[in-house]
Amino acid sequence: MTLELKPGQELARGVCRHLASLDFVSIEEFTPKTGLRVDVMALGPKGEFWIIECKSSRNDFQSDKKWQNYLEWCDRYFWAVNSDFMTELLPEETGIIIADAYYADIIRTGPENKLSAPRRKTLLHKFARQAAMRWHNARDPGLIHL
Amino acid sequence: MTLELKPGQELARGVCRHLASLDFVSIEEFTPKTGLRVDVMALGPKGEFWIIECKSSRNDFQSDKKWQNYLEWCDRYFWAVNSDFMTELLPEETGIIIADAYYADIIRTGPENKLSAPRRKTLLHKFARQAAMRWHNARDPGLIHL
Repeated sequence: MTLELKPGQELARGVCRHLASLDFVSIEEFTPKTGLRVDVMALGPKGEFWIIECKSSRNDFQSDKKWQNYLEWCDRYFWAVNSDFMTELLPEETGIIIADAYYADIIRTGPENKLSAPRRKTLLHKFARQAAMRWHNARDPGLIHL
Repeated sequence: MTLELKPGQELARGVCRHLASLDFVSIEEFTPKTGLRVDVMALGPKGEFWIIECKSSRNDFQSDKKWQNYLEWCDRYFWAVNSDFMTELLPEETGIIIADAYYADIIRTGPENKLSAPRRKTLLHKFARQAAMRWHNARDPGLIHL
């Protein structure tokens, strides 16, 4: 598998590794609904959903006008930034993860806003299907999507 | 990814390709509970779960003493066999898929026995986590499970 990652994808890789150590599974570039794509969607052992947006620079963060739309699709929301990032810029009431391409650490958890049961069910179904579809593409290069 | 498959795994590959054409996602060697491993677990667009056991020979089928334990973990149950298999051997009230390494066809659907809502929820959570974990292992070879 090619490993030429963009800066944001490098952060995502480190984030996903750290999440795995917390027993969260995760997929990158997950689409909770059409037109909305989150950098990392993580699913915890008890069914918790966390969204992590990875920002490689101040400019990358400041040009994101969509992030508040993500809040209704998770129990907790985090930013992942590198150790040079001025974390004071990040909104209160959000979580913060300091990451690099290899690992990450949660430095602020932020509040929990629990998903409703029907939305959680919908999300779980989409998450399961997107994860299985990607794994199928990886294990069977002969697969043709109709 | 290595493609040296055993006969049963070849059937599973063909089965998963056909399921994809029906908008079912699937994972192989799925564990619904400790000690129970099914050849293919498929998840449909409406949340349906199908189990498909792949039998490469008469002997392979007749030595399976566990298959009835799988019934309570799916809405529909199928056998996948190759075109030489004497399908008369297969129990009534089960579905049949004729498969090879490249493709498959459902020739008997068998009855539907709907999962209870709590069990469906548990299964969906396990399916999501197993699929995401395998996809994570594939996309990040540097991942170390703790």
